[in-house]
Amino acid sequence: MATTTTTFSYQHLLQFTEDIFRAMNCSAEEASLAAKVLVSADLRGVDSHGVARLSGYVRLWEAKRINARPNIKVVHETPGTAVLDADGSLGLVSGPAAIDLAIQKAKTVGTGWVAVRNSNHFGIAGYHAMQALPHDMIGFAMTNASPLVAPTFAAERMLGTNPIAVAVPAGEEPPFVADFATTTAANGKLEILQRKQLPTPTGWVQDASGQSSTNPNELKSGGALLPLGSDIERGSHKGYCLGSIVDILSGVLSGANYGPWVPPFVAFLPLAPNLVGDGIGHFFGAMRVDAFRPAEEFKASMDNWIRRFRSTKTVEGREKVLIPGDPEREMEARRITEGVPLLTPVVEDLQQLAQKLGVAQLQPMEA
Amino acid sequence: MATTTTTFSYQHLLQFTEDIFRAMNCSAEEASLAAKVLVSADLRGVDSHGVARLSGYVRLWEAKRINARPNIKVVHETPGTAVLDADGSLGLVSGPAAIDLAIQKAKTVGTGWVAVRNSNHFGIAGYHAMQALPHDMIGFAMTNASPLVAPTFAAERMLGTNPIAVAVPAGEEPPFVADFATTTAANGKLEILQRKQLPTPTGWVQDASGQSSTNPNELKSGGALLPLGSDIERGSHKGYCLGSIVDILSGVLSGANYGPWVPPFVAFLPLAPNLVGDGIGHFFGAMRVDAFRPAEEFKASMDNWIRRFRSTKTVEGREKVLIPGDPEREMEARRITEGVPLLTPVVEDLQQLAQKLGVAQLQPMEA
Repeated sequence: MATTTTTFSYQHLLQFTEDIFRAMNCSAEEASLAAKVLVSADLRGVDSHGVARLSGYVRLWEAKRINARPNIKVVHETPGTAVLDADGSLGLVSGPAAIDLAIQKAKTVGTGWVAVRNSNHFGIAGYHAMQALPHDMIGFAMTNASPLVAPTFAAERMLGTNPIAVAVPAGEEPPFVADFATTTAANGKLEILQRKQLPTPTGWVQDASGQSSTNPNELKSGGALLPLGSDIERGSHKGYCLGSIVDILSGVLSGANYGPWVPPFVAFLPLAPNLVGDGIGHFFGAMRVDAFRPAEEFKASMDNWIRRFRSTKTVEGREKVLIPGDPEREMEARRITEGVPLLTPVVEDLQQLAQKLGVAQLQPMEA
Repeated sequence: MATTTTTFSYQHLLQFTEDIFRAMNCSAEEASLAAKVLVSADLRGVDSHGVARLSGYVRLWEAKRINARPNIKVVHETPGTAVLDADGSLGLVSGPAAIDLAIQKAKTVGTGWVAVRNSNHFGIAGYHAMQALPHDMIGFAMTNASPLVAPTFAAERMLGTNPIAVAVPAGEEPPFVADFATTTAANGKLEILQRKQLPTPTGWVQDASGQSSTNPNELKSGGALLPLGSDIERGSHKGYCLGSIVDILSGVLSGANYGPWVPPFVAFLPLAPNLVGDGIGHFFGAMRVDAFRPAEEFKASMDNWIRRFRSTKTVEGREKVLIPGDPEREMEARRITEGVPLLTPVVEDLQQLAQKLGVAQLQPMEA
């Protein structure tokens, strides 16, 4: 199948996305913020979480599952913690509010932790965790998501891909930024194989009865993604633990839905009956490094950590050992100048969206 | 090879272990505490981390790498955080001090986080995390450890098995207790296969050049354990991220050694040259659930979470989906009445230790 792409400048994609959120009736400030968060995924090479999802957000708004004019409120608070009710907002908006509040609390008592309920998909977790970096803080971000993942021994989808991001400041070196789904492979990687009609590696998916499969379309037939570890022999119970911890911190601690009750991202799927909470849930944290040791000392040690790991002896055929965040940062540097390539079906989807909402069409970057 | 066992009562093993720590010149209080922490591993079925390691602690003490009379001090502090210098103590002693301090801080500001440097092996992470449960808090415990694990693409050992434990209180249901190494398989599982002369599953180890292997003795020939995920196709970079996060929080944040500099558990191996910190590092956290929502409400939701996950549809041949902590709790209930079986080489090692230190020999449980 065709996988042709057209390239657009980052600034143009950003403006286009902002225009769409404005057309959804978001405030100017929130449309600008939401666009910045969403397009950061395209910039960093996480193509499944960027503008490819924009029409999905619009459909959720049309279905009245996203509130474009939210009143985001603190509903519970201590000096070091808070719970936000996001009032049905875009997670792209409630996420930044939550990590900002965590950062403020960390300034006062050393660390800050904010759980969010009644929210929606928040883009890439890494964006939010990285907001802590300029403050010399370690940032944490995680979210639950609609159920696609079978726990170890299960033949039923109970957890989302439930990502975890942790961003750690360094001194002269770029920061350490881990951002990963707690499954073997994220759904976006399955979509690539679906387009290419290729089988998956073993350990990514199982069929509806819980048997191992390599069919990238298995999710459409009642199958499930597998927790990090793939199978019990290789530690899938640990991936199941991780996904569960994210679900509990994001969903149970905040009063959002959890487990199989988490609302779907696609508007054509109904909500689960007898919901156990409000919307989806996120969890954020910020830790001042100087709440533990002087910041300059910490950052010098992180530089040493990063340099030592980067110089690790490699297996034959591999040039270097990567530091978490390296591939995304390199992609960002490239795309900010060379533009963002979008697959043809994504471009067509965005142009239709523009037409429907009366927004100017996307214009390719000049070669 | 023989894998015969002899069974000992929990109380007797506890007293024996306390006697050994007393013979090491630990104070009465610390010997009692250290024994309780260490033997909790045997009770919960984590046989690799219990009395099987007792002679290892003694050898580290003989090599003057463990200080039996430590002066554990807070060296840095904010309302919500602290760093402890463990003064070379047993981690079995500094760990409880650190989680207690985290719990005290959480009472005041909502959450508490304590990093520890200049420490030694702390037993099972789960024990420490579970100390938060009676306070209606979520407990976190992690530690770095001597380098046995190769990052993705690496042919060199850079990280320890760096476990993470998270304990979450419930209401009527038993708590959720996740406790796992961030590798595919813990070293203890390799030791079982070595005794039985059986190959490992693929994805557990690699050889000295970084090629996949199924030889359980690979670590003795310069090979390495693999991060959770096993290989790049199945997400080993995520296990590498997790192990790194544990190393950074435990080692870099506290001022302990990190990465390849973490001191070995076995006394016959020398320390790495040019150490970058003090001893090994741990990291602990406690979060009051009522810093987020009323505790009774949270615990009722956790009960619902646990019951829903326990009732998940299973794959054929599996009776139920487990909740993290189930196997260890069931083992503890059995062993507290039926006793703890120890392998013959472990019993012989303990009897020699008793003789050397002038402690009464272990007596098997009466049948």
